[in-house]
Order: sequence, then C-alpha cells, then structure tokens
Amino acid sequence: MLPTFSLQFPIPISDYPTITLAHGGGGKLSQMLVERMFVPAFANPELETLHDGAILDFKLQIANSKLTNADGQSAICNLQFAFSTDSYVISPRFFPGGDIGSLAVHGTVNDLAMCGARPRYLSAGFILEEGLPMEELWRIVQSMAAAAQAAGVRIVTGDTKVVERGKGDGIFINTAGVGVIPAGVQIAPGRARPGDVVLVNGPIASHGIAIMSVREGLTFETAVESDSAALNGLVEAILAAGGEAVHVLRDPTRGGVASSLNEIAAAARVGIRLDEARIPVLEEVRGACEILGFDPLYVANEGKCLVIVATDAAEAVLVAMRDHPLGRDAAIIGLVVAEHPRKVYLRSRIGGLRVVDMLSGEQLPRIC
Amino acid sequence: MLPTFSLQFPIPISDYPTITLAHGGGGKLSQMLVERMFVPAFANPELETLHDGAILDFKLQIANSKLTNADGQSAICNLQFAFSTDSYVISPRFFPGGDIGSLAVHGTVNDLAMCGARPRYLSAGFILEEGLPMEELWRIVQSMAAAAQAAGVRIVTGDTKVVERGKGDGIFINTAGVGVIPAGVQIAPGRARPGDVVLVNGPIASHGIAIMSVREGLTFETAVESDSAALNGLVEAILAAGGEAVHVLRDPTRGGVASSLNEIAAAARVGIRLDEARIPVLEEVRGACEILGFDPLYVANEGKCLVIVATDAAEAVLVAMRDHPLGRDAAIIGLVVAEHPRKVYLRSRIGGLRVVDMLSGEQLPRIC
Repeated sequence: MLPTFSLQFPIPISDYPTITLAHGGGGKLSQMLVERMFVPAFANPELETLHDGAILDFKLQIANSKLTNADGQSAICNLQFAFSTDSYVISPRFFPGGDIGSLAVHGTVNDLAMCGARPRYLSAGFILEEGLPMEELWRIVQSMAAAAQAAGVRIVTGDTKVVERGKGDGIFINTAGVGVIPAGVQIAPGRARPGDVVLVNGPIASHGIAIMSVREGLTFETAVESDSAALNGLVEAILAAGGEAVHVLRDPTRGGVASSLNEIAAAARVGIRLDEARIPVLEEVRGACEILGFDPLYVANEGKCLVIVATDAAEAVLVAMRDHPLGRDAAIIGLVVAEHPRKVYLRSRIGGLRVVDMLSGEQLPRIC
Repeated sequence: MLPTFSLQFPIPISDYPTITLAHGGGGKLSQMLVERMFVPAFANPELETLHDGAILDFKLQIANSKLTNADGQSAICNLQFAFSTDSYVISPRFFPGGDIGSLAVHGTVNDLAMCGARPRYLSAGFILEEGLPMEELWRIVQSMAAAAQAAGVRIVTGDTKVVERGKGDGIFINTAGVGVIPAGVQIAPGRARPGDVVLVNGPIASHGIAIMSVREGLTFETAVESDSAALNGLVEAILAAGGEAVHVLRDPTRGGVASSLNEIAAAARVGIRLDEARIPVLEEVRGACEILGFDPLYVANEGKCLVIVATDAAEAVLVAMRDHPLGRDAAIIGLVVAEHPRKVYLRSRIGGLRVVDMLSGEQLPRIC
C-alpha cells in the first residue's frame, strides 16, 4: 500500500546533507526536523498539536446493554489518555543529582504531567553497548525502580538490545509512558491567552550546568546539582488550585525556558514578555553560566515547569506551588500579551527590552 | 523515598562482569537479564506475565450519575489495553524486504497483536548518529509512515536525539505502542493447555537469513527476502475464527521458534512436541541455513505468528489463516502435551526425538 504523503524531499539538502548534533539540541534545527519531516510524513491530528505528548481520545460503547441514560441511549465511555516518549543519551551517565536511569523516569513522567495527565505506566527500552559493566547497569536499573516508585508509576514492559563495542555509548534508554487525563482538564500550548501569567516552579538552568560542570571538570564553592525530579505531584497541586484556568504546562528541557516559551508563543499566536529580575537562578548557576558563556534562559532543566494561567487564578496557583516541596521558590516571571505575536521579549535588569529567540545551533549536546 | 526491592546484586558478577552481545540475542542470557534484574527491580504484576506486551486494566466509574444498571449501581467502564515497546538496531538498515523503519512499525504492531490487542497508536524515538545522511533518514521515515498506514496505526508522538560520530551507528529507532483488547479476548503464554495444537502462519527463518545473506555477501539463485509484515489483520482473522479457543499468540523474533516455544512451555508448565516434517521452511532458506550452519528453529522471524489453540477450533483457525494473504502457507506444526513440562521436543524427519532448548549464546547479533 502506498503512503498518501508527497515523496518530495522535505529539507533543503544542500544546506543540511547530514544530521548534525544541533538537530538533537531542542532548538531551530530540531524544530525543522519535526515540522518539515516527521509531522508531514506521519500526518495525523494527534501529532500536529506539537504537545509534550499525544492526547488520545477513546470513545467506547459500554457492553452492558441494560445501561441507558435518561434519554434511553446506551452509555458511552469517554476516556482521554496522554502518550509520550523520550530517549535518553545523557553523558556522563552518573551526575550530581541523578543518573540516566532516574532521568529516564522523570523525563517521561514530566512529559505526561505537562499534558495534564496522571502518569500511570512506563515502558523501558535499553540499548546497551557490549562491554558495559554489569554493575553499572544494575545501579541504573535500581535508580529507575526507585524513581518510578517515588513518582507512583509502574515500569510494565521493556526490551533490551545490545550493539557491538564502538557502535553505542554504554547505555541509551527509551521510556514511553501512558497517563490518564482527568475529565475537564484541557492543557495545550495553543491555549495561552493575552493577559495570562507565566510562572516557573523554581530556579532555572541547574540541570544543564550540573552536567556541563562534570564534563568540563569545573568545581564551584557550592556544588551545582541537577534539578531532575518527577513533577506529577506538583502538577496535581497546580490543577487542584487553578482548575480550568491553567492553560499551558511545559517542562523546559532541551533549549531551555527560551525555546519552550517560543514554541508556546508560536502555537498560541501570542507574544510573551519576561521580566529578567523575576526569573530565579541560583547564584552558583549564574556564576557558572558567566564562566562558561551560557545564557541561563537556554540551559536545559529537568525538574522545572512553566505554568501559564489566567490572571485571576495566578495567585492561588502560586500559593499552591510554593506549598509543594518542588515549588518552594516558584515565581511569576512574565505575561502573555497580544502584541508581537510569536515573539518572546525580555525586560532586562537595566530596563532594556530584547528579543529572546529559540536556541539556534547546539549549546549542550547530550544533556538528556 | 527508598525502593522496596533488595539492593543485592542479582547476577553472578564473576560469570558476567560486563554486557555481551548474547545478552541482547533473545536467548538464555537475555532471559537472565529480564528474570533476575528487570523483573525483580521493577516488580509489578503487569511485568511478571512476561508477555510480548503489558496488559493494562482500566476500571473507571462513569461520570454520568444518571446511568445505572438494573440493580441501581452506577456504570463501570472496564477497558483493557496492551502496551509494548521495542528498540530496533538492525544492521544493515536497508535489507531485502524492508528496512529499519518498516521493521520498527511491524515489530511493535505485532507485539500488540500477540496480546490479542488491536494496535492503535505508536510512538517513535530516534537516536541518530552525527553524519547520518539526511536522505537516508527521509527514506526510513517514509517507510515508517507507509508501514503505519498499511497497518492502520498512527505515529502520534516522538523524540529525536543525536549522538556524536562514533557513539552510535547511524540510526536506532524505538517504538512503543498502545492497542485496545476487545472484550472476551484473553491471550497469554501461560494459557497453553495439554491437547492444544501449535500452528504457524508460514515458512520460518526468512528474516534472519535475509539479513545474514546481505551481511555475508551471499547470493542464492532465489533471493531470500525478510518476511517482515504487520500481523494485526491476520490476528483479527484468527480471533474471529477461534474466539476464546485461541490461547496463545507469539511472534518468534530473536531466538526464533525454538526460544518462543520454550518460553511458552515454561510459562504454562507444559511440554511441546514439534514435528520437523510439518514445519515450513523455504527451500532457499533451508539451503542458506545449511551453508551458514544455522538451525532454522533458532533464526529470527518478523512476520510469523505461533498460534496455540484448543483442538476443536484448530481446523477453523487453520482455514481462516490460509484465507489471509499472510497465512497462505499456514500449518499445524506441533502439540501441547502434559509430559516433559517446560521442555520442547522435536520429532525429526527420520523419526528421532530430540530436545529443542532455548538459544544459548549469540547466533545473529542486531537482527532487529
């Protein structure tokens, strides 16, 4: 059977004849692959929302024919699931605050939570390189099990492949996840509205800087730890406080806060204004960013959540976030505006206004 | 929070200090990793069935309070899903009869179908090596899209990572899938019963021999093609014909028919007897096996399905299989017996009886 999509090559081959590291960086080239290759080829409404996961609608007639509603119609069961996947190739495999195993659980749990879902089940696909020490695999597996238990999800199915020495890099892990979206919850990047408030649950850029410090052999007075964490509990608290006023949830991983907010601005055709002075960054992370030449807005996070919420509910959501262990330093960092649609602006500490574009090129390879 | 599982190292480290290719081969060492490391660490009832995928039960109270049954109880919606994952690392990426893209769709569709589910949605996680020609990626993506369309599934969510040159091997693909199990269907390796009949939908070992021929540069008078195919349509026909008499479905991929039947014999605590003369193998595949020194029973398949069914329904299931394009050469190849539980025996063409053990060691690395 022939596919119905055009067979024309979708990307200017003279500009990009081969895959580069930047195609996996979460910035402009990643976006190009998704929007010009994967979405047209796999064309379907679920994929086109460009959410952190797909929202799946199941509408099922109830088998029991004795069940009817007041109008004599038989019962229909409406269920919404979220379904998401990520592969983890982080280097190094063990880092301050976590390892590839805990990260592989947190990352997919968070992608489901960002769809407003309650994460329930994970799969785990291992691609191991011949020669990986068995003891390292065991530490990673234990870490996954502990992270899954803490997040309240089960790893229910899996697969293991082994590739020859020199054809992999120790261990890559893919996790996919399934979660149930409670009735009434409707979270999507396209739902940001002018007047909405942008919040974050704490200081940004810690994960990327923790990884980079290890790689570069940097030491600071205070060790920088990854913020890697499962955010599903925090999201439940946010939804309990904000209800339908919660419009968008997003975990700013690869490409950082800047890239995530650009994606939201594009999906909702709105502008976003950030206030630099309000964006929390740990002192040691800020220092490391200066030394390494990074802008914290572009550095990856693994335990952070951007929340876009209607103004009236913002205070209640902020209070709920601060009541949660993973939201103690939550802050309002910006506003959604009707002006400059599809663009993100930052008001700097000294009062200037500058465009915050998506990440272009590769800032930190293999950060997750 | 601490995990509840023991932290003791589960595998004799002096015997297996590092991961070997055989740990990914689908034989005894693969089984050891699953049974002694993953299952104890991730302990949960879904994982312990050792099915091709996990069976997930969702029991949900219907929101509409007007709906009650004859006893005045409110409606409960019972849904069973199958959830499965596989990573694909096959080398070479393009082979006679398919490529890594079509394989990544067929493999996961088949794992869901082997749970008795109707496959609905797939995820796709790409791990690309820096330097992969963009044109190759596009051919693979098109092939996935065409395979998904032909199988009636949608690729609804995905992820792309890029690793440095020399840290991967062109492209690895993980797919996970979700399918709905129709009410009344109950398929599990543990359901094989003495007296049941073992069927296969056509000649075995073609996939493994097709891959091996390309790798070894062998040419035969008739080219050997992979049998890679989506089996969900065939499974629907089998279930329509056999109903609840269909006890087990299994696609004998890595480790071949021998390893799959050993897993079933162990799960159901039954013996299985095969009749060599009844097992279909293409002439050119048999010839290649002789040249290469392989036993077809241990060679991987990607479009084959073992069916274990109660005797009374065997004829109807066989007819239904032969009516389907992917089952034209279906055959009854053996019987489930009460004798020699957990063992598989083969009656050879010359009448001798020999034990068919699980694959031990690595026969064909990176066959899928």
